[in-house]
Amino acid sequence: MHSWVDGQPAHAVPLKDRGLAYGDGLFETIAVKAGQPVLLDRHLQRLDEGCRRLAIVADQTLIRSELQAYAAALGEGVLKLILTRGDSLRGYGTHAGAVARRILQGSPPATYPQAHGSSGIRLFACATRLSEQPLLAGLKHLNRLEQVIARSEWRDTEHAEGLMLDMSGRVIEGVFSNLFLIRDGMLLTADLSRCGVAGVMRAELLAQAQALGIALTVADITLEQLQEADEVFVCNSVYGIWPVRGCGAMSWSVGPLTRKLQGIVRALLDI
Amino acid sequence: MHSWVDGQPAHAVPLKDRGLAYGDGLFETIAVKAGQPVLLDRHLQRLDEGCRRLAIVADQTLIRSELQAYAAALGEGVLKLILTRGDSLRGYGTHAGAVARRILQGSPPATYPQAHGSSGIRLFACATRLSEQPLLAGLKHLNRLEQVIARSEWRDTEHAEGLMLDMSGRVIEGVFSNLFLIRDGMLLTADLSRCGVAGVMRAELLAQAQALGIALTVADITLEQLQEADEVFVCNSVYGIWPVRGCGAMSWSVGPLTRKLQGIVRALLDI
Repeated sequence: MHSWVDGQPAHAVPLKDRGLAYGDGLFETIAVKAGQPVLLDRHLQRLDEGCRRLAIVADQTLIRSELQAYAAALGEGVLKLILTRGDSLRGYGTHAGAVARRILQGSPPATYPQAHGSSGIRLFACATRLSEQPLLAGLKHLNRLEQVIARSEWRDTEHAEGLMLDMSGRVIEGVFSNLFLIRDGMLLTADLSRCGVAGVMRAELLAQAQALGIALTVADITLEQLQEADEVFVCNSVYGIWPVRGCGAMSWSVGPLTRKLQGIVRALLDI
Repeated sequence: MHSWVDGQPAHAVPLKDRGLAYGDGLFETIAVKAGQPVLLDRHLQRLDEGCRRLAIVADQTLIRSELQAYAAALGEGVLKLILTRGDSLRGYGTHAGAVARRILQGSPPATYPQAHGSSGIRLFACATRLSEQPLLAGLKHLNRLEQVIARSEWRDTEHAEGLMLDMSGRVIEGVFSNLFLIRDGMLLTADLSRCGVAGVMRAELLAQAQALGIALTVADITLEQLQEADEVFVCNSVYGIWPVRGCGAMSWSVGPLTRKLQGIVRALLDI
């Protein structure tokens, strides 16, 4: 399917775009099922938060209607929205009249092995650490060199994802996923106020857990806590939940709470 | 003048470009005088270092000849090279066959007030801190949201540049400049192994100082050291050197070593 730029079919962006020049923008990767963008409200909520924090002026109503129209035309697959601050004058300075550019790209459904969800995966222990920047933490912004470097650390298919720590050694997330631990029936996921991407599936799971009366904690996580977890899983808004069986010398079994949450997510993603 | 993409006149890049998607690339901003790219060897050296550290495969000989040809056509002004990792497949993963994309854009000579160089400037004390990431430190990569946020902190014309500290409070650089202190005749500039951009003019000044027998130190700098400096200046490869007269409550006079280095840089940049 053709990509759209500002609502029109297009395959390129002007060289002056600040997304290209500085990574000055945000993105969302959205599963599309039966012509509907899955978890659209949560994606738009994170995008809106990103726009507010980065002072990017964008028409959220227009973005919502474009995402819905594009998803309807795509039918099944993955929809990627890139929202940049628009064109640059000269240098880092922004100007009041800047209009955000909306880029929509569609692709076929993701083709991860079925076994990732059923049998679980192994995480590669990335040496690349996440730097700590509260001004950007949580946002799905376009400055993603740390993820590019981390993802280049392994090429084998034995590892489906990578584990990333921050500069202080806290356990934060996967390269393209959020991470959850389960211990004594309680869900634990990393506080993302210094670094990390606050994933839409993470937000959905936190809300679902609360609705189900599952105890949950958002806090700093140590490697010791990870090691001692009863269950571990990663999640994102495209593949849902993958149980984690191992990472380096650590190993976990796939447990009942992970399976329960997988059931909920499968219903959402229709997988 | 028309921009070039991979040696051909163009005004846009494909939506799949990884520079747009992830800020996955590098850039150089080069002064052009009498059809020549100024300090070309140093720009290419930094670019080459960036390619090596980010594992971007690019033809440095081709880049050199393109920069020379573009500068010859531009005559006078500023040449910006963006080198991206090329097109993306899906996700952060890179593939061995990726070919770097070369984007050249020209603009007229910068129009900073003459007084910045003659009378000196004031720095705005930015609240935005630089995060610490040794894997990216020193490189002029495309992940520049910190600079975008820092530059948005002031709109007045009283401040020509902003002062940036790192997360630990060390004095690092300007938003688009490197910073030098002079104390007892010795030059001091920040160690950039944790964060910051290792500017081409900074490298040139360090080499010139060494050739002139001026004592120089590259080390961590505290705010106290900044306050107690005899002279302070900022530099980059487009405007050369601006003496710094003040920043917040701190103030300095424009001194003889700054003036001496300005003379050298003026000859280079022909300003």
